[in-house]
Amino acid sequence: MGRTQWAIAEGWIPAGSHGPEPQMTSHETVCLLNTGDQDAHVEITVYYTDREPIGPYRMTVPARRTRHVRFNDLDDPAPIPRDTNYASVIESNVPIIVQHTRLDSRQTENALLSTIAWTG
Amino acid sequence: MGRTQWAIAEGWIPAGSHGPEPQMTSHETVCLLNTGDQDAHVEITVYYTDREPIGPYRMTVPARRTRHVRFNDLDDPAPIPRDTNYASVIESNVPIIVQHTRLDSRQTENALLSTIAWTG
Amino acid sequence: MGRTQWAIAEGWIPAGSHGPEPQMTSHETVCLLNTGDQDAHVEITVYYTDREPIGPYRMTVPARRTRHVRFNDLDDPAPIPRDTNYASVIESNVPIIVQHTRLDSRQTENALLSTIAWTG
Amino acid sequence: MGRTQWAIAEGWIPAGSHGPEPQMTSHETVCLLNTGDQDAHVEITVYYTDREPIGPYRMTVPARRTRHVRFNDLDDPAPIPRDTNYASVIESNVPIIVQHTRLDSRQTENALLSTIAWTG
Repeated sequence: MGRTQWAIAEGWIPAGSHGPEPQMTSHETVCLLNTGDQDAHVEITVYYTDREPIGPYRMTVPARRTRHVRFNDLDDPAPIPRDTNYASVIESNVPIIVQHTRLDSRQTENALLSTIAWTG
Repeated sequence: MGRTQWAIAEGWIPAGSHGPEPQMTSHETVCLLNTGDQDAHVEITVYYTDREPIGPYRMTVPARRTRHVRFNDLDDPAPIPRDTNYASVIESNVPIIVQHTRLDSRQTENALLSTIAWTG
Repeated sequence: MGRTQWAIAEGWIPAGSHGPEPQMTSHETVCLLNTGDQDAHVEITVYYTDREPIGPYRMTVPARRTRHVRFNDLDDPAPIPRDTNYASVIESNVPIIVQHTRLDSRQTENALLSTIAWTG
Repeated sequence: MGRTQWAIAEGWIPAGSHGPEPQMTSHETVCLLNTGDQDAHVEITVYYTDREPIGPYRMTVPARRTRHVRFNDLDDPAPIPRDTNYASVIESNVPIIVQHTRLDSRQTENALLSTIAWTG
């Protein structure tokens, strides 16, 4: 179930946060669901406004598992800069489902957004 | 109208709440719409990060009705743990439409998100 | 451009509001876009949890125009009750694009959500 | 990767803001991602409730780049009025991916929404 190629055109990790760490740290998350019986080998490429894309960031979603990955935590091949527009493409060797969530806790109260990633 | 298989890659029931109960309790809801003339028998399977999926959670959406089901209230075969990442797959014997909403009332003011579930 | 049949599985008009009227009144909006050269005759049917669907609510979106309709304002054939779960199906004689937005101002600060409606 | 024609049925730039400029200015953003090896020449047309559409607003998204464009900043052929409902169609000569985000900072705390644009 799912697709092997997804895209998220919107990305932004705010530099500041309010509230208890780490749950209330401002963050961007990509939620990956693998309902199949084979492990999914996933590669994320990050696109920027004014330089070449960076990646792949590699991760595995085991068979019949979900992984919610924070863009904040990605650091190989390079961390994602704060307060910078980016976008991402998610590719997998087996079909998966991808959703995108952001918690923005720069101000006292939080804003939260979620969008299904795009697949063709 | 609709599809028989849907997925929600993002799931999280916050442990705490602010505001009057039960409307302002933090919750995750799956909204099911059955526009057809036959009852929809729906099965939800919940996926986790580090253990086997749990389910099916069974429910019926009568013909020409909508049901908004709180993941908080599911308890057969097992309740969904709080503060834990999960994902879900929704399957129905007849076509339905599925949407996902979360009210997060951990802090004084609330955050609200909604996303159409994914269908292939 | 668009489709002739759309569905929104999630609906809820909160009973209370904070902030200046009418912009900050809690409301649910369906945004209709008609990019074509023919007027769109649109019919909305509203589905409930425990009674038969009500409708059609009829409206026109002129050629090359957008209309943002508040569910709060619909009253023919009947107003939509507050604090009640509902869902809706939007049908048009020509292709249109449909999106769904909610402003929830029950508490001091507002929550806002938006989702593209579903089309098959 | 992507499509050449997208639509966003919902648009609204609030007239007021709270918080530090320009990050916390109320704004509507269209996020454009071009994963291909050819520059994307993009044209946005803006639709209104009671007058003819205005456009095209022209911009380029270079090969392998993302651009996050604020509707607030568009002014050729004409700025987009505040506190006014609008909708938009985004067309490109090569496939792109389009997402829509709004930060609403009219009240002290912010509301944030994001939705994938619609493509047929």
